[in-house]
Amino acid sequence: MTYDYLTLDTHSGIPLYQQLYLAIKSAIEAGHLAKGERLPSIRKLSEDLKLSCTTVEAAYQQLCVEGYLRPRPQRGYFVLAALRKDAGHQDLLPVSAPQPNEATILYNFGSDCVDSENIDIKIWRRHIRDVLNRQDVIASYGEHQGEQALREALSTYSYGVRGVLAAPEQIVIGAGTQPLLSVLCGLLNGHGSHVAMEEPGFLQAEQVFSDCGIEVLHLPADSEGIRMDALKSCGAKLLFISPSNRVQTGASLPMSRRFELLNWAKETGAIIIEDDYNGELRYRARPIPAMQGMDTGGNVVYIGSFSKLLLPSVRIGYMALPPALMERYRERANRYNQTASKIEQLALSRYVKSGQLERQLRRLRKLYAQKSTALIKALTNAFGSQIEITLQETPLCLILTIKTKKTTQELCALSVQNGVRIMPVQDSGATKIILGFAGIPLRDIDAAVNRLKAAWLFP
Amino acid sequence: MTYDYLTLDTHSGIPLYQQLYLAIKSAIEAGHLAKGERLPSIRKLSEDLKLSCTTVEAAYQQLCVEGYLRPRPQRGYFVLAALRKDAGHQDLLPVSAPQPNEATILYNFGSDCVDSENIDIKIWRRHIRDVLNRQDVIASYGEHQGEQALREALSTYSYGVRGVLAAPEQIVIGAGTQPLLSVLCGLLNGHGSHVAMEEPGFLQAEQVFSDCGIEVLHLPADSEGIRMDALKSCGAKLLFISPSNRVQTGASLPMSRRFELLNWAKETGAIIIEDDYNGELRYRARPIPAMQGMDTGGNVVYIGSFSKLLLPSVRIGYMALPPALMERYRERANRYNQTASKIEQLALSRYVKSGQLERQLRRLRKLYAQKSTALIKALTNAFGSQIEITLQETPLCLILTIKTKKTTQELCALSVQNGVRIMPVQDSGATKIILGFAGIPLRDIDAAVNRLKAAWLFP
Repeated sequence: MTYDYLTLDTHSGIPLYQQLYLAIKSAIEAGHLAKGERLPSIRKLSEDLKLSCTTVEAAYQQLCVEGYLRPRPQRGYFVLAALRKDAGHQDLLPVSAPQPNEATILYNFGSDCVDSENIDIKIWRRHIRDVLNRQDVIASYGEHQGEQALREALSTYSYGVRGVLAAPEQIVIGAGTQPLLSVLCGLLNGHGSHVAMEEPGFLQAEQVFSDCGIEVLHLPADSEGIRMDALKSCGAKLLFISPSNRVQTGASLPMSRRFELLNWAKETGAIIIEDDYNGELRYRARPIPAMQGMDTGGNVVYIGSFSKLLLPSVRIGYMALPPALMERYRERANRYNQTASKIEQLALSRYVKSGQLERQLRRLRKLYAQKSTALIKALTNAFGSQIEITLQETPLCLILTIKTKKTTQELCALSVQNGVRIMPVQDSGATKIILGFAGIPLRDIDAAVNRLKAAWLFP
Repeated sequence: MTYDYLTLDTHSGIPLYQQLYLAIKSAIEAGHLAKGERLPSIRKLSEDLKLSCTTVEAAYQQLCVEGYLRPRPQRGYFVLAALRKDAGHQDLLPVSAPQPNEATILYNFGSDCVDSENIDIKIWRRHIRDVLNRQDVIASYGEHQGEQALREALSTYSYGVRGVLAAPEQIVIGAGTQPLLSVLCGLLNGHGSHVAMEEPGFLQAEQVFSDCGIEVLHLPADSEGIRMDALKSCGAKLLFISPSNRVQTGASLPMSRRFELLNWAKETGAIIIEDDYNGELRYRARPIPAMQGMDTGGNVVYIGSFSKLLLPSVRIGYMALPPALMERYRERANRYNQTASKIEQLALSRYVKSGQLERQLRRLRKLYAQKSTALIKALTNAFGSQIEITLQETPLCLILTIKTKKTTQELCALSVQNGVRIMPVQDSGATKIILGFAGIPLRDIDAAVNRLKAAWLFP
């Protein structure tokens, strides 16, 4: 018997049993050893290859575990599988993608960042550190529904800041709006064949609905919000709405329409999903309370998050379920693992309970009011009647309609070349861009606008 | 004109404009002020109530924003909505649920915890602290697909430890298996009407499938794994499988069956979702490489996680998509927000790249081998032939079948009363319990078993 296929290298640093295991495995896969063939005994192979019996035994044992060999008492080891493994995987070996180079961006008007100077980073770090010191906490899984301490804190916070009426038991935590919607979709039963949304919709919510087999109906809006006649006639028993932050207008849904929607839900037994994105961030007047707090029929699911209040890198959101959905959730709570980090949940609960989140909220309201005023002033000074400005309050951005022969894409490209990141408004006939002001420090606003002016080369 | 409905308290500490706003709001909601009614002018009301004009103006402004009032130039403020708001919300005000008291548990055989003494907690804290010091990182959202640095680290790690062949671009990060499955379900298109699983299934995966409208088919298994004839005849083009950690037996799928499954997928164009839960944690022999690395047809989606390796409180998993699904993912990547914490992702990427995770893995393999051996020995000493022990290697637990007239529930209750937490095997005719040994320190095993023996009061 020859062992040509068994080439071992005593100097390679790879354990010999492992080399032996790999060599036999390859031989089987390549067909050098046929199905049913008997391998040499452990003693024989160890003598022939000058290996210890332990080494050979370890290799054989591993091959048995993996199903390559079958041991037969008193008879030896036999090849079990003899399937040829195709080659052709080399081109899939790990390679690195080039990292986008953002080093040249001096002023970032993207809507996906916040002003790092105005984050409570020191306080957050301290809370994280304190939680990481609690071994009992970090060595176990979290509660499926989210940490009790955080649900208690959010029950009080959301009542104080948004008028949400929810006991800690009604609150479900998740890693943002999408995982929460996923869980919610599973609870909707009879409500879940269609969901109504105000035009133009909200892509990331729609994705979850469509993944869950719920068809999205885009309904037209009048000046106040989604049209009641359209809602009533579309037949949907489910409405997704962002009352504080309507995508198209950035305007808030007036109280009268809110009551109309609540009455519609109560009469028809429909569910309203109230996505309160940035609802607490109004700075021009006091925020409008959440619809959930006005709901008397148990028809509203409230969804809240913190991305513009806290670090955007922290992924925590929460929803408050009405009693009927809560009951259904409880039956299946253990089927959903919690998605939010337990450590960050506990850090957040401390941040909320200490009142630091509310202080941060007041600070940010003031700051965003200052920023929007300063940015409007700087733009008006720089461009005069060449631009039209619409403030979107809670998305923390301005929409500029620009009178120019240049296209939106050209303006964006010129800006980036000059170190300013702006965002285009897609699918618009006019030249329109979005300037998010959350991420730009107050003192940089004038310089950033001047650079935009220089970049665009307007006559 | 009387203002009976406007009762303000100058000593309450609540700003007067806010009291005024609330009072008018309540009056409108209660119907004391009818739709279309004109309110007193700002000047008049301020004189009558002895308030400053600014105070009244602030209240009116807020009521306009909220849609209660409509300002008409030169004419004044008119009531816009006059809907009666029902009472009856008092009983929903926040209350606290009692916290479960676990202070009396001395030995925890639950499967949901790890041994806190064997966690790299100091190293993890240092990485978290380092990431929290990077302001640029924490003040912006993460990448939709997951942080590039982590995807690079996992590409190398999963190749080295599990034989997974995936470039960083093929890897998608998420807050555990469920959110990853949610995203995956949206990509499955033609594969997604039915999913085959080996009996008895896996509840948390099934929940996601069913939420996404994918029907679960439980297929029977023979001694090697899911039966090929059942799979071929059921018509499913999607298979969910945990080859390293089969739920029923804890045994690993042998190599021959793996190749059969891969061939089936290649021939029929099916997708295999390989849930590699604890696949790297075999300690009795070397781990069996992932099926993904043997796949030559682009049919396997690999899902990996870290819950028994890292802190279980950290929620990070990853999946490696084959090229066709990757392409579909790319088209819609921006529709899914990342669910895993960016800070924890970056900490993990440092932990992996430094080789610390692999060192921890080697340490834990050794430790779990010691623990399982010690526990089996202690149980055999204590109970002799009264118990039958089955080791489930990668779930890190033993299943005990106990010869006793006591029920499973009685044994669990007696254990808890004596400070030992164990878990029942549900729906079993015999008296069966699960002892997870991940969370119990090696030195406590004898004492814990003795306490169990004392608790159960066996004759």
